[in-house]
Amino acid sequence: MILAQAVPEQISAVQYSTVYNLLSLAIASLLFTAIYLFVSMRRVAPRYRNAVVVSAIVCSIAAYHYFRIFNNFGDSFPAGETIEAAHVLSNIEFNEGYRYVDWLLTVPLLLVETIAVLALPKAVQRGLLFKLVPASAAMIILGYPGEITLELGPRALWGFLSTIPFIYILYVLFVELTRSIVRQPPEVQHTIRMLRLALVGLWGVYPIAYLFPMLNGLGIDFFASSNAWVLKQAGYTLADIFAKAAFGLAIFKIARVKSGLEDISYGDEHTVDEGAATSGVGAHGGSPARDDSRVPAGSQS
Amino acid sequence: MILAQAVPEQISAVQYSTVYNLLSLAIASLLFTAIYLFVSMRRVAPRYRNAVVVSAIVCSIAAYHYFRIFNNFGDSFPAGETIEAAHVLSNIEFNEGYRYVDWLLTVPLLLVETIAVLALPKAVQRGLLFKLVPASAAMIILGYPGEITLELGPRALWGFLSTIPFIYILYVLFVELTRSIVRQPPEVQHTIRMLRLALVGLWGVYPIAYLFPMLNGLGIDFFASSNAWVLKQAGYTLADIFAKAAFGLAIFKIARVKSGLEDISYGDEHTVDEGAATSGVGAHGGSPARDDSRVPAGSQS
Repeated sequence: MILAQAVPEQISAVQYSTVYNLLSLAIASLLFTAIYLFVSMRRVAPRYRNAVVVSAIVCSIAAYHYFRIFNNFGDSFPAGETIEAAHVLSNIEFNEGYRYVDWLLTVPLLLVETIAVLALPKAVQRGLLFKLVPASAAMIILGYPGEITLELGPRALWGFLSTIPFIYILYVLFVELTRSIVRQPPEVQHTIRMLRLALVGLWGVYPIAYLFPMLNGLGIDFFASSNAWVLKQAGYTLADIFAKAAFGLAIFKIARVKSGLEDISYGDEHTVDEGAATSGVGAHGGSPARDDSRVPAGSQS
Repeated sequence: MILAQAVPEQISAVQYSTVYNLLSLAIASLLFTAIYLFVSMRRVAPRYRNAVVVSAIVCSIAAYHYFRIFNNFGDSFPAGETIEAAHVLSNIEFNEGYRYVDWLLTVPLLLVETIAVLALPKAVQRGLLFKLVPASAAMIILGYPGEITLELGPRALWGFLSTIPFIYILYVLFVELTRSIVRQPPEVQHTIRMLRLALVGLWGVYPIAYLFPMLNGLGIDFFASSNAWVLKQAGYTLADIFAKAAFGLAIFKIARVKSGLEDISYGDEHTVDEGAATSGVGAHGGSPARDDSRVPAGSQS
């Protein structure tokens, strides 16, 4: 069974500007999250800086690819005769390969930053990464042949093959990682669980977006013509913004909280205010010293 | 005997997008590895920073050249009438010179970063560089006339001449350097040996890619037409990614391990947790001081 054109022959002016604005939103979100994280990395303790830097690198790599996708999209769908006219596909291929090259680099790194922020014992960390990184690369590589094919059968087959490492990643994150999460400070356990859930929820958007062109092939009206393709682009783009920029900020937040718990000099911004809130002292006059009780013995570096 | 055109008259749409995506992958890998290394250089002890900075510079130089190659490739092989049409060589030369200029700068620097991370006695270091740097420059310079010639004989001759300094570099790395490697800390000896092996394995890809157009000339079907050229581009590009980006990250890793062994303040990220994991103390309360036993006597800089 042959699916509709992988890339539609034409898209409406509204569809064009929807994708165009989402791509620009992705550039802005990812580029400036990257800059924020680079500039803020010294606000976490040294042992968490690698997690923050890797988060910044992930957002930078994605921002680079969104610049490329944005320009490529404009070349592939040039403006018509009038503003309202459809944008007809030009002789320039719309290169879905950018997304897969991006994911090949960023998805393993997202797992690296997640594991890094947990600051697990070295052997445990190495064991987890040894399982997660190759599985995530396999997931991306197996998805690509299905993405570019026009036939339903191979698309479903490659999609299925790509799902196997995805399930394995979920298994590692939910079964093996759980033993490590309970050893994290109680203040961040909830955030880490939410982060893991977000990772699954967001990564679940990609296979759904991948399926849209198949729904098209199955003859569901809404997914006919160019709707399936536009939805796929919107799905991939929004998922990238949340799974990289928002996710990176959550990693930074966890690193900040853990840094503050371990070394008072990284925790002053909040502890002053928390102390002030309970003691009734002016919010900006508190001394960090009063929170010494929260510092575990011997954690001063 | 005359080889086929050094640059093919035309390449298929699939060949075009393969090279295009590999060039973009090279830009992303090299540029963001460079940024990662620049940002992370303070995480190694001062004596290893030059190795990390040189690694970052190597990746930066290569990223610059891949931007040039990417744009040049697009200009040399513009899109045809339709997306599926072959990309016909335009009036813009595809400049293989970018790669040789890149290698002329980066290959000697790759040897500099490799020697620098070993932190050898100054006289030994100077002696090794005095042998390796001119040999690597000679290897690149002798390869270039063979790269651009259309004749089999000169291509083989220059390739042979270029192999002489390559063999000499291997000799220095494997015979002379071995005496120094055994004096490295046992924790990094294995990584350094792997690094040296990777250097040989990866550098070996270049002469193989160089040979593809000769196989073409020898009448092997698969290497006919544009396949040989596309394979050569893919081989050079992937080899550059591994020999510069992945290699630079390995140098950083060695510098991190050695920094941690010599100065506890650079090793705290993991040692605290390792101590906690084995002693049963809360994972975030350990004092780095307990790991003093790991610091070799007299290694404080």
